[in-house]
Amino acid sequence: MVETHELSKRLVILKMNFQGKNLQSIWFEPESGGVCIIDQTKLPHQLKINCLQSLDEVCYAIASMQVRGAPLIGVTAAYGIYLSLRSNVNSLNEALDTLSKTRPTAVNLKWALKRVQEFLAGEGVDNIVGKALEVAQLMEKEDIAVCEAIGENGLPVLRGIWESKKNSQDVVNVLTHCNAGALAAVDWGTALSVIYKAKLAGIPLHVWVDETRPRNQGAALTCWELAERGVANTLIVDNAGGHLMQTGKVDLCVVGSDRTSLSGDVCNKIGTYLKALAANHNNIPFYVALPVSTIDFSILSGQEGFPIEERDNREVSHMRGQTEQGKMETVRIALSQTAVSNYGFDITPAEFVTGLITEKGIFEASPESLSKLL
Amino acid sequence: MVETHELSKRLVILKMNFQGKNLQSIWFEPESGGVCIIDQTKLPHQLKINCLQSLDEVCYAIASMQVRGAPLIGVTAAYGIYLSLRSNVNSLNEALDTLSKTRPTAVNLKWALKRVQEFLAGEGVDNIVGKALEVAQLMEKEDIAVCEAIGENGLPVLRGIWESKKNSQDVVNVLTHCNAGALAAVDWGTALSVIYKAKLAGIPLHVWVDETRPRNQGAALTCWELAERGVANTLIVDNAGGHLMQTGKVDLCVVGSDRTSLSGDVCNKIGTYLKALAANHNNIPFYVALPVSTIDFSILSGQEGFPIEERDNREVSHMRGQTEQGKMETVRIALSQTAVSNYGFDITPAEFVTGLITEKGIFEASPESLSKLL
Repeated sequence: MVETHELSKRLVILKMNFQGKNLQSIWFEPESGGVCIIDQTKLPHQLKINCLQSLDEVCYAIASMQVRGAPLIGVTAAYGIYLSLRSNVNSLNEALDTLSKTRPTAVNLKWALKRVQEFLAGEGVDNIVGKALEVAQLMEKEDIAVCEAIGENGLPVLRGIWESKKNSQDVVNVLTHCNAGALAAVDWGTALSVIYKAKLAGIPLHVWVDETRPRNQGAALTCWELAERGVANTLIVDNAGGHLMQTGKVDLCVVGSDRTSLSGDVCNKIGTYLKALAANHNNIPFYVALPVSTIDFSILSGQEGFPIEERDNREVSHMRGQTEQGKMETVRIALSQTAVSNYGFDITPAEFVTGLITEKGIFEASPESLSKLL
Repeated sequence: MVETHELSKRLVILKMNFQGKNLQSIWFEPESGGVCIIDQTKLPHQLKINCLQSLDEVCYAIASMQVRGAPLIGVTAAYGIYLSLRSNVNSLNEALDTLSKTRPTAVNLKWALKRVQEFLAGEGVDNIVGKALEVAQLMEKEDIAVCEAIGENGLPVLRGIWESKKNSQDVVNVLTHCNAGALAAVDWGTALSVIYKAKLAGIPLHVWVDETRPRNQGAALTCWELAERGVANTLIVDNAGGHLMQTGKVDLCVVGSDRTSLSGDVCNKIGTYLKALAANHNNIPFYVALPVSTIDFSILSGQEGFPIEERDNREVSHMRGQTEQGKMETVRIALSQTAVSNYGFDITPAEFVTGLITEKGIFEASPESLSKLL
């Protein structure tokens, strides 16, 4: 079942389908037995809900980035196990294996699958389907709580910056990269959770949103969800952040993380490292917001241990958007014979990270500090 | 007169129109009395030649970036004075004023206009048109010689890197930002002149080309002209350079400059600063190639003195390219209500510049070194 809604009808649909409740990035729909997701490849032009009914659909949704963001990938994978077992109670190992290969970099995909595997250990075929749904729903709820706690823990950082400002005309200017928002998790998000908590606390905010080529998650997702929640934001190209930091237009950077090493090296969307360098050079705090589940305690140094995903070259050579006539169209922006390289992530060394904002509190990016979480 | 050529017919056209000679970015056509330019807004999909016949057409060509790049803007402006005087021998001051406002950041637009003004000082109405053409053609020739000398002076840097490589399978990997190539000048270019000279000297090369959002000069112009001249190149998003430098895939960065201060601060296409930071952090040489005419000796510090152009927001929110059907189409990649900011340049502090490659030799980015050029 696939429903398509025009963005302009969003509010009505929300009321109709979700009883006025906040729209999550993923939810279980008992009536259809499906797992509903926002198809993020269609945003910001269209709010399309896909209801996944099989493991294949879940794998495709993760690999094609209909769902993306470390926390959301984890919860989606947990639901994928449920959908697989529902159609074949003996498919656990195969499903775990298939799902683990959908995206290479986000470590909490593996964390989530391990969690499900442990929860289901020893379950017989009579109970396993119900138990799989139970753990997926539990992880969904936990993710919301974890992300909300990240926001709460990060709030004092923004409050401190706001209180240090002398001029009541000021706002706190935050720069963020990619989308570490509600759309990257079940709700709240990681980096944007801090922003939403600050907004709710009455701190005047403005967010500079890096476009985030090649997939434009900033332009397509972050601007969209910030606007939906009434947070002032301005879209910039990925090249612009350094200039904004040099000229005093950024008070703070907050980004997410796909995988963090024990020493505090942060593997996040390609381009994060460049912004961290600029923040460092301009004495601007650079925070990373992340659930503890994205910390890979088995790897000390990010440079040595993290696999960096290489993605389809078409993400670079082609661009999708809306024509003046309102039609979705893909255009090629380079010649077809042009060679392209497309690494998905880079690693920001711990030395450039002011602090890691987690659901357990703010930690220094160092092995001494992070090993307390073990 | 506007001619449109399909790219696939380029070679034939070159032979027909230019007697097999290298295609320049600008040239005077005695038969039509027009100033011919490659319309760079149409590349890489189409090689379109516009023949400008009036000051208005020249101003539009500069402002709309049909011609762009500091050296080329200067020569184009000189031809603009000629075209203006040809239609009205008393229009010198008005033409100088109008042209000086077409682009704010490139200092050698002002340098070129001053040069023309001095050349024409005291000329009577009988001679001024011929003299204006003379100086424009002189500046065109000089620009070619200056850019070729930049390449010659930069060649030992690339040769040194090549000779330091032990493995004969290696190539010299250069990263460049935006387009500081033949298309940014009359011919040769600045940063790419160094690359062309190295290519001619038999040094095996590969160039990482930053896409250069928002206008994609890397994808549209640099990849195109490197391919035309047989230089291996790979298109990357602006976010990727840091990761490539961290992982040993870049030996050297070479970029151009729109304006350089006496202290060696480099104002160049937005995003240059971020790459300079990454080069510095990874001990990779970061060279800037530029004609001396782009040095603004009147300004010591780039951060304080350079105006940074803000351009149309549509450059960020919209993207132009070719559909699968071969049609040129513009698509919107953000919602129409999304706020956008679009600064055109940033400033790379002198401390991050390994050397300034000019037609007079390589100079340190310092007031002591650059004042020798005064």
